[in-house]
This record gives sequence, C-alpha cells and structure tokens, in this order.
Amino acid sequence: MIKLLITGGTIDKCYNELNGELHFPNTHLPEMLQQTRCRLEIQAETLMLKDSLEMTEADRIKIQQACIASNEQQLVITHGTDTMVKTAEYLAHQPLNKTIVLVGAMLPYKIGGSDALFNLGCAFTAVQLLPQGIYITMNGKIFDWDKVRKDTEMGVFK
Amino acid sequence: MIKLLITGGTIDKCYNELNGELHFPNTHLPEMLQQTRCRLEIQAETLMLKDSLEMTEADRIKIQQACIASNEQQLVITHGTDTMVKTAEYLAHQPLNKTIVLVGAMLPYKIGGSDALFNLGCAFTAVQLLPQGIYITMNGKIFDWDKVRKDTEMGVFK
Amino acid sequence: MIKLLITGGTIDKCYNELNGELHFPNTHLPEMLQQTRCRLEIQAETLMLKDSLEMTEADRIKIQQACIASNEQQLVITHGTDTMVKTAEYLAHQPLNKTIVLVGAMLPYKIGGSDALFNLGCAFTAVQLLPQGIYITMNGKIFDWDKVRKDTEMGVFK
Amino acid sequence: MIKLLITGGTIDKCYNELNGELHFPNTHLPEMLQQTRCRLEIQAETLMLKDSLEMTEADRIKIQQACIASNEQQLVITHGTDTMVKTAEYLAHQPLNKTIVLVGAMLPYKIGGSDALFNLGCAFTAVQLLPQGIYITMNGKIFDWDKVRKDTEMGVFK
Repeated sequence: MIKLLITGGTIDKCYNELNGELHFPNTHLPEMLQQTRCRLEIQAETLMLKDSLEMTEADRIKIQQACIASNEQQLVITHGTDTMVKTAEYLAHQPLNKTIVLVGAMLPYKIGGSDALFNLGCAFTAVQLLPQGIYITMNGKIFDWDKVRKDTEMGVFK
Repeated sequence: MIKLLITGGTIDKCYNELNGELHFPNTHLPEMLQQTRCRLEIQAETLMLKDSLEMTEADRIKIQQACIASNEQQLVITHGTDTMVKTAEYLAHQPLNKTIVLVGAMLPYKIGGSDALFNLGCAFTAVQLLPQGIYITMNGKIFDWDKVRKDTEMGVFK
Repeated sequence: MIKLLITGGTIDKCYNELNGELHFPNTHLPEMLQQTRCRLEIQAETLMLKDSLEMTEADRIKIQQACIASNEQQLVITHGTDTMVKTAEYLAHQPLNKTIVLVGAMLPYKIGGSDALFNLGCAFTAVQLLPQGIYITMNGKIFDWDKVRKDTEMGVFK
Repeated sequence: MIKLLITGGTIDKCYNELNGELHFPNTHLPEMLQQTRCRLEIQAETLMLKDSLEMTEADRIKIQQACIASNEQQLVITHGTDTMVKTAEYLAHQPLNKTIVLVGAMLPYKIGGSDALFNLGCAFTAVQLLPQGIYITMNGKIFDWDKVRKDTEMGVFK
C-alpha cells in the first residue's frame, strides 16, 4: 500500500472560466490515476490545494505530521515545484524511516501537453524501489532531496 | 545514458484518416519524450513498428541482437502488450548482464486518456533503479519478466 | 429546437483496449455538446452506431423515417464520411421541407487533434441559417448535397 | 476569401511554465485551423494578443481600421469574451458593409475540454451565410451584436 499525499501545485491547477485565472476547485489525482490504469493499492489524502509559493510553515508542519502518522512505508507527495525542495528539507529534519517521493509538474494535468502523468509514473515507481529517504522525481530523474534545486529560469530540476 | 529500443505496439499506433484504420506511420516517442520534459540522456533506435501480435521470431532475434549490441547498460523497450512477455522470455535466454525494461500502453499516446506517458515514466525510472535483469512495467507495477502475464479479458498485467 | 440524429461514423469511434480495434460502445455526442458549452435546445436521438461503409438500405430508410417523423424543422445528422453523400441523396428523394445538415469527422472526437468539434460548430450554425434543403458541412465549407463528393485519396470534401 | 483578425482573448491563452501564469507568446490560430482540416481560403492577421479586459480605445480603433481596410467582405475576429460586445458596438459606429463575426472561447484551445474549435466552426460558418452586419457566435448561438451580453456569473452569452 502506498500513501499519496496531495498538496496542490501546478499538477492540480485548472482554468476558472468565470474569471480567467488558474485555481484549485478540487484535486484531479483520482482522475489521473484512473487514466494511468494504475493497479497499485493507493491510499490518497488531500492535505491542501495550494500553489507552493503560498505554502506556510503551518502547511509544511501539516505535511510532516501526515508523513509521521502514515502507516504506509511508501509515500508519494504531489507538490508545487517552486518550494518542493524546501518541503523536502523540512521533512528531512525528522527521522521518518520511510521512503518519501515528492513530485509535481511543469504544466497542469488539465492542459494539453502536460508532463503530469509521466512524472507520476516516475514517482510511483521510485517509491517502490528506493530505500528509506526523501527524494524528488522530476524530468525523468531521481534526486536525493539535498542534491537538487529548481532552475527557475530553465524550468528544470538539476 | 539509456538506450530506448522502439518496436511499435499500441503506444505508437495512430489513426489513419484516409481508411479509418490504425497504423504506424512513424514513432511518436520523440514527441512523447519532449512532452515529458525528460532530461535523461536517451539514445533512441526504432527497430520496427509492429503490432506485437504480428511479431515474428526474426523480429525477436532483431530485438535480442540490439540488446546485445547496445553499449548502454540500461535499456527500455517499447513493445505491444500482447506478446511483451514472450519477447521478454526470448531475451532471458541470453545472458545479457543489463537492466532491460519492457513497456507499452493499453491506449495509444495519440488517443485522449492514454496511459502511455505514465507507463514511460515507470519504465525510465525502473531502468535506473533496478539491478540487471529483464522486467515489465505496466499498471504502475514492476514485474520480473517470469512472474507476469497479461490478463487479456481484463486488459491488465498480473 | 434542433433535432440531432446520431448514426455513428468516425466522429463517434473509440479505441477498444481489449482487442486494439476501433468500436462504438456508445455515442460521445452528449460529452461533445457539454464541452462546446452549446446552449441551443437540442433533442438527440441515436438511430444506430455504424461505420458508414456498413450502412444498409434499411439503415438509410430508418434515417429517412426519423427525418420525416421529426417535429423539428432543423436537423443535424452525424454520419460516417464515406457514404454521407449517399445518405443525403436518399433523403433528397422525399420532399421533407426541413433543413437537414449531415456532418462527420475525419478523426474521432476521442483522438487528439480531431476535427469533430469544429465540424459540429459548422453544422449547428448552418442548420440555423440555411433554408430548407439537404446540406453537408465538412472542412469548414457548406455544400449542397448534390454538389459535393468525398475525395478519398485526399480525405477532403469537394 | 475570409479575413481572420486575431486579437487575443482566452481562446489564445496558454500556460507559462516558468512563472505559472497565463500568457500570449503567440497565436494558436494556424494550429487550430490545421486541426480543423478547414479548406476555406483564410487570410489571417494578428492585430494584437491581449486579454480583452486590457483592451484600450486605441486597440478598438486598430480593429476598426483593419475591418475598413480589409478587401474581404467576410471577417472573423477572435476576441476575449469580456469586452467582445463593446468592440462589436465600436465597429457598428462605422458603416462597414461587411459581414463581421466576433468569436472567442471560455476555455483556452490549449486546455483540455476547450470550446475553441466548436466556436470557430460556428463563426466561419456564420460569416459565410449571414448578410452584412456585426454578429457574435458563442454557445452555439448566433447573436446580433446589439442583442447580446455576457452573463459573467454564468459564463454564457444571452
């Protein structure tokens, strides 16, 4: 059983046709998982739906507590890319003894040409194969949380 | 560097609007990889573009030879799902000392709601993390080649 | 009120992931109309779901009878492109005193890059503006039924 | 020959993955027209790429001048929905003796589930069939410019 913690981020953004802005009316993860024909046992929980630039310390504590409380040893966290590394660092402060993979997307799932499903495939595979620790999967790569940063000019993780 | 061997299968099928049938005018893997924003170094080679029900022994020998000839230790093979296990078995006859992951899709990349990109994410992550051997990634799961079969009634790998 | 008669054709085809063939499990017209945000009053009726190459004379009689029986003066018929002109000719034998527009698609709605919604927009607009008669809308053009043929080599109506 | 004047609006918005906002790097109309398999002769001209809430009087004068200067008698204008009616009114001040159809979308073409192509189908058909005047096509309906308003709470034209 894998725990999926949903926190928002670009992957879950969609277009609000009443005001022309992007928003988070609800998570699209169940729809995404259905599309993938994924047969893993996944326990999903929506902690918040936020742009990661707007995440507060209270939000990160909430994520950390959810990781601690989880009975599952394997956790995937969907997260905005801008502060994904910061949250990973936050989680690393606590000895969690679990495999935790943070993942997001550069383009919302709901927008044509999105990287969302590919990234989810990376995260759900990595979480099954990696030893305990905190990781980020983006751009097809698997990073230790403390050896990666987002290059915001290029829009890629290095 | 990861070697990508392309052999066809549902993942690469598209609609021929002149006769209303599905065909393989060319591979969509480069387009898929671009969409994923994948930054892995990938060496792609198209061996054939076939429905896997039409693969001959000569085709499987060609795939085997390409695996042997590859300088890369990590190989992903896109393949039709119907005989994916058979090709995996074929590759297992030869001691290859490489990590080989076979992957396909239930729905073509070009069709809305496809599982293609998710499956690619699984395969490219698995090939980076697994020891030598021959594997299949479908439905979010990672299988040893000799412990899986396609349930053609359900359309899932078990 | 506009009557929508659904007969199948490429516009409604989708991929059967169990056998890799295209089929018609049910019509996608309600889903298409929802996507278009169309606010016309439309009365939809599925007469059949067939590739138009497989339509029989009995099928064309059924379409004709549905046109005669319709209380609405404006009818849109979704139809396979291969014999769309033949059905139009069939309908022209009977003095119907209605505006009837036949429309289809070169690429199924369910396949990325489809012309289905554009064509529907053409048909539903044409049926509101044209006088009594039988018409075909494809490729952005409006044709009198007896001045058009499908160029099957080019895949366009002329 | 139909003149297509492009001014921006939701129909042409896309997601900027570097900053997570919607922007207008360039028009998608050529891509849209290719997808529709439209065989009309269309002369496209991009006047501006703007959210219609940001349009100035200078912008509307520019649109008006382009309508006057056009040799074509049939014009389609892509436009943001929020001030589409205002621009239509502006055009009506001048006796243009042309058929002009304004059209936009509630959801960008680049976002899954968009109404863009349907609306374009409506506009290109209406412009061929309507007498001189200024019209708006949205939600499958054809409106005289002075008998319509956007219901911003419902997101529909009435």
